[in-house]
Amino acid sequence: MTAASRYTYLGPEGTFTEAAIRTLPEAATRELVPMISVPAALDAVRSGEAAGALVPIENSVEGGVVATVDELASGKPLMIYREVLLPIAFALLVRPGTSIESIKTVTGHPVAQPQVRGWLRRYLPEAQWESAASNADGARLVQEGRYDAAFAGEFAAAIYGLEPLVTDIHDAHNATTRFVLVGRPARPAASTGADKTSVVLWLRADHPGALLEVLQEYSARGVNLTRIESRPTGKGIGQYCFSVDCEGHISDRRVGDALMGLRRLCPDVRFLGSYPRADHVEPTVRAGTTDEDFLSAADWLTRCLDGRPGEAGRTASER
Amino acid sequence: MTAASRYTYLGPEGTFTEAAIRTLPEAATRELVPMISVPAALDAVRSGEAAGALVPIENSVEGGVVATVDELASGKPLMIYREVLLPIAFALLVRPGTSIESIKTVTGHPVAQPQVRGWLRRYLPEAQWESAASNADGARLVQEGRYDAAFAGEFAAAIYGLEPLVTDIHDAHNATTRFVLVGRPARPAASTGADKTSVVLWLRADHPGALLEVLQEYSARGVNLTRIESRPTGKGIGQYCFSVDCEGHISDRRVGDALMGLRRLCPDVRFLGSYPRADHVEPTVRAGTTDEDFLSAADWLTRCLDGRPGEAGRTASER
Amino acid sequence: MTAASRYTYLGPEGTFTEAAIRTLPEAATRELVPMISVPAALDAVRSGEAAGALVPIENSVEGGVVATVDELASGKPLMIYREVLLPIAFALLVRPGTSIESIKTVTGHPVAQPQVRGWLRRYLPEAQWESAASNADGARLVQEGRYDAAFAGEFAAAIYGLEPLVTDIHDAHNATTRFVLVGRPARPAASTGADKTSVVLWLRADHPGALLEVLQEYSARGVNLTRIESRPTGKGIGQYCFSVDCEGHISDRRVGDALMGLRRLCPDVRFLGSYPRADHVEPTVRAGTTDEDFLSAADWLTRCLDGRPGEAGRTASER
Amino acid sequence: MTAASRYTYLGPEGTFTEAAIRTLPEAATRELVPMISVPAALDAVRSGEAAGALVPIENSVEGGVVATVDELASGKPLMIYREVLLPIAFALLVRPGTSIESIKTVTGHPVAQPQVRGWLRRYLPEAQWESAASNADGARLVQEGRYDAAFAGEFAAAIYGLEPLVTDIHDAHNATTRFVLVGRPARPAASTGADKTSVVLWLRADHPGALLEVLQEYSARGVNLTRIESRPTGKGIGQYCFSVDCEGHISDRRVGDALMGLRRLCPDVRFLGSYPRADHVEPTVRAGTTDEDFLSAADWLTRCLDGRPGEAGRTASER
Repeated sequence: MTAASRYTYLGPEGTFTEAAIRTLPEAATRELVPMISVPAALDAVRSGEAAGALVPIENSVEGGVVATVDELASGKPLMIYREVLLPIAFALLVRPGTSIESIKTVTGHPVAQPQVRGWLRRYLPEAQWESAASNADGARLVQEGRYDAAFAGEFAAAIYGLEPLVTDIHDAHNATTRFVLVGRPARPAASTGADKTSVVLWLRADHPGALLEVLQEYSARGVNLTRIESRPTGKGIGQYCFSVDCEGHISDRRVGDALMGLRRLCPDVRFLGSYPRADHVEPTVRAGTTDEDFLSAADWLTRCLDGRPGEAGRTASER
Repeated sequence: MTAASRYTYLGPEGTFTEAAIRTLPEAATRELVPMISVPAALDAVRSGEAAGALVPIENSVEGGVVATVDELASGKPLMIYREVLLPIAFALLVRPGTSIESIKTVTGHPVAQPQVRGWLRRYLPEAQWESAASNADGARLVQEGRYDAAFAGEFAAAIYGLEPLVTDIHDAHNATTRFVLVGRPARPAASTGADKTSVVLWLRADHPGALLEVLQEYSARGVNLTRIESRPTGKGIGQYCFSVDCEGHISDRRVGDALMGLRRLCPDVRFLGSYPRADHVEPTVRAGTTDEDFLSAADWLTRCLDGRPGEAGRTASER
Repeated sequence: MTAASRYTYLGPEGTFTEAAIRTLPEAATRELVPMISVPAALDAVRSGEAAGALVPIENSVEGGVVATVDELASGKPLMIYREVLLPIAFALLVRPGTSIESIKTVTGHPVAQPQVRGWLRRYLPEAQWESAASNADGARLVQEGRYDAAFAGEFAAAIYGLEPLVTDIHDAHNATTRFVLVGRPARPAASTGADKTSVVLWLRADHPGALLEVLQEYSARGVNLTRIESRPTGKGIGQYCFSVDCEGHISDRRVGDALMGLRRLCPDVRFLGSYPRADHVEPTVRAGTTDEDFLSAADWLTRCLDGRPGEAGRTASER
Repeated sequence: MTAASRYTYLGPEGTFTEAAIRTLPEAATRELVPMISVPAALDAVRSGEAAGALVPIENSVEGGVVATVDELASGKPLMIYREVLLPIAFALLVRPGTSIESIKTVTGHPVAQPQVRGWLRRYLPEAQWESAASNADGARLVQEGRYDAAFAGEFAAAIYGLEPLVTDIHDAHNATTRFVLVGRPARPAASTGADKTSVVLWLRADHPGALLEVLQEYSARGVNLTRIESRPTGKGIGQYCFSVDCEGHISDRRVGDALMGLRRLCPDVRFLGSYPRADHVEPTVRAGTTDEDFLSAADWLTRCLDGRPGEAGRTASER
């Protein structure tokens, strides 16, 4: 296959990221290449070796969030094309024939542990936990006989010749990881009516109210935020950039207007894309912030500049 | 003369408004017509009988402010072309030969009284005050012998055959009246770099934070207000419109952008014009709000929509 | 009667202000004294000659609003104890026997004219209007035969020996005048649960965002405004104070906290009283702004200062 | 030694955290115990086995920031007593006698790598990098002969029998790690005039403007933020808490007032302490936010409630 049909993802095989990439409609016709790290997966896109990369960005049990946020904020520009939400539930994978009573040692990614701690305390209070480099790696170590059982996605069982002894294990309800499909910058896909827009914002370091002003640029146009994350810029204590997702599409006037406001306010803004929301939630558009409201205000301004402020029919003040 | 060369003003002759209109460079070549009231002066413009009207709008000693604000906010649209600031100082006008000791009764417009109260208490503590319909009318009543002295502008003396016994009387320092020259809507004169822009704003009555949001539309673009005045709309207790002047010209991007924001926010906005400031004070333009900042942000948005967000040279985040 | 049982009001007899004062429960046991002007009515209170004064403050058809607002903002402090809302409807008063066909001239207070203009155009299109000093004065002039008819309150008919030919005349629906009963400063009456609190605020003249900050002091505590009116301070163009009414009672924590915030923000704040709303509308209290919320936050701060931040039971973060 | 004189820190020995703890004046008289992780170091304090724990909180090269922020936000309450800033510069540690030309393999903590990447490219372009569990662990591996050189703090050389071949290596200028000394909740030390106050804030998940309102609570009192970091609460995508440091001490009225405002606004607030700034920078206190301003406003409110609003001398409005 060619680079154009290649997608990288945060590997190894058998992790939740692989499960997430396989939910993409085009996955069947793509070469899916696991990479050792988020930077490696993204650099393959930057260099043109792959057309896209699927990486976790939020609340992952695989780790990798900070790496993704920081990688998108720096280096050669990339763009988010799609997001995938994957409910996180673990299976307890064992070698065929293993009974729950015989389990003395369990393994898994360190991030998985807090998600299964309650289950372990209840059903395997005596079992010894040791961390593995990834959930998939834990499964491999069970295959090799190093541990009795591994917490991983149920889909990993087949890969490593194991069987799921218990499934749907998760202490927290609604544990979900959010993944993004990242590519090189291009014209964003058309608005679907339920989209998100992501940017990275740098604030003026010496300006105490800068973050407040950033939030006001959004709220003044009735644009709701869905995520805000601060990240150090690496230029000294107290210097941050912000990774921000909002409701709506850059082609929505209220979103485009907010982005221009941010561009004027901030020393730097990086546009990371407008893409469909995985949960299909449509934004509530506040009165006065529809596309029509923006166009009609621009039309009115033109008429004012032209000396015909009241021409488009009588307004309230003329009645 | 024709209507095109006629200016009306709030009369009668001999008031501060006449003094103000005579400071206009074109006054010498205009027919100046005193009118009985602010609405009468403005209606002559609306009907095409006059090209302009000079009326007091702020802190006047002649009265008339509320009338002007309300007239500009309702009826057929008008536009402000110029403002005039006139320092207010009174003369004590008497019939020739009158000595200060012989003054038993004084008159003047009721609004003049607080401006001269301190002077009266000191120099004419026994004199009886009675109000006149205007300062000029007071002078006329002195001419007719009804009162011994009138407070009016020094310029009124000649008109009524009186002489100024004392001049430059004013209790408050910096007492000034602001007048505006009003015409029919037309393309605003080009920006001078030191301009004001006036609007009337109607707020949604049922929305507690509406005024806060109005002020934020200005402050978000670094546009300072120079005057804000609330006026009842006549539709019930607690329902207001606001007459607002800000720094800058409608052709300044930050001002135009604020006006569009107001137009989206408010059920109605009436543009009253952009015109040179009488005090020639240039606005402080905050970082990020110059015309260039607005154009460059719009250019960046276009590039983002076009899939080329980072093209205009490397930005901070790519270094 | 003594000064303690004397109330002044904006006269003359037969105006809407007299009608308003007669709605007060204690009116029957008070000596009600009409005064020539708002300052005169209030000065009688300041000097101790009267215990209270009833004056119009908002949207009056008698005039007097600006005078009241300015008088309350300056001079010896006064306090508002009560408000009265009076629906405004005019009667056409004539000498007994006058038919509508015979009416050639009508009179009334200038502020009444816009309220009856539509009615006049419809029923008396040929009648000549001339202004009187007050509605009551108009009635007197009809009594004296100077005019054929006067617009005034129906209650004025008896006083001047006239009869109401037509009643309930009002162009605008909901035309209402708001009056306030003013006394010398004293401990405000206890909260009724549906109160208003009035203040006058002076802003720092050189600070563009000052009004925005004032409004934020209210909105940050969920306190809604019911009226805001700007008034020049008389110290130069562009210098204002604001007369502001808000929902709630000074003894409500959220109102007291907002007032303290204003006191810190503004060079001067004048407290004009907390008093029951005439319309008995109770405020909507936003989550986090009840008295209990304020007390519990103060209690928590004390515990933090004392080294026992988490003592009052486990909070969300400890679960 | 007893628990009262024991401090834990994020180990192992020979890391920057140990260097940081040794800068504390009391370090000489404390038993300093390295722990395997941030949670372990803090749990020793929670359980009473240690009086304090020094852990990195910001921009560390040792990792651990997120762990510290999350640990302080959850579990049994802890409090920050002190902060330490440590400039980060690496030494290249080798076995005695090793020349730079002979170095084929280098190691160090993964977080160290980006800090020395530029140096490696320039001086050791051929050397192979492999990651170690900590900088100190890398030094140990060099001691054992597994690698030729390790990046670590110069202070680690003596511990592992190595020598610093090159010192003061750091790609970024001003690379600094911020550490905090954490103990059990107690009365905060008195204000030094240059302090910080730390809290964790939980926002109402369903309220789009919640973060904006949080920032306004600070800015309304003129309190500047020095750090804000969002952290997922683990209760679902899009649910965050914020770790916030601000200028000033909880006993400063403006800070205490802001904290009470946050407590009312947020479903939960955790106070993490007021402590001296390591950089001794004193806050700029905005007009109207001094302790005296707060006390004088409270005094005024009391007088208003008591019916004596104007008693403390004439204010601007009475002149």
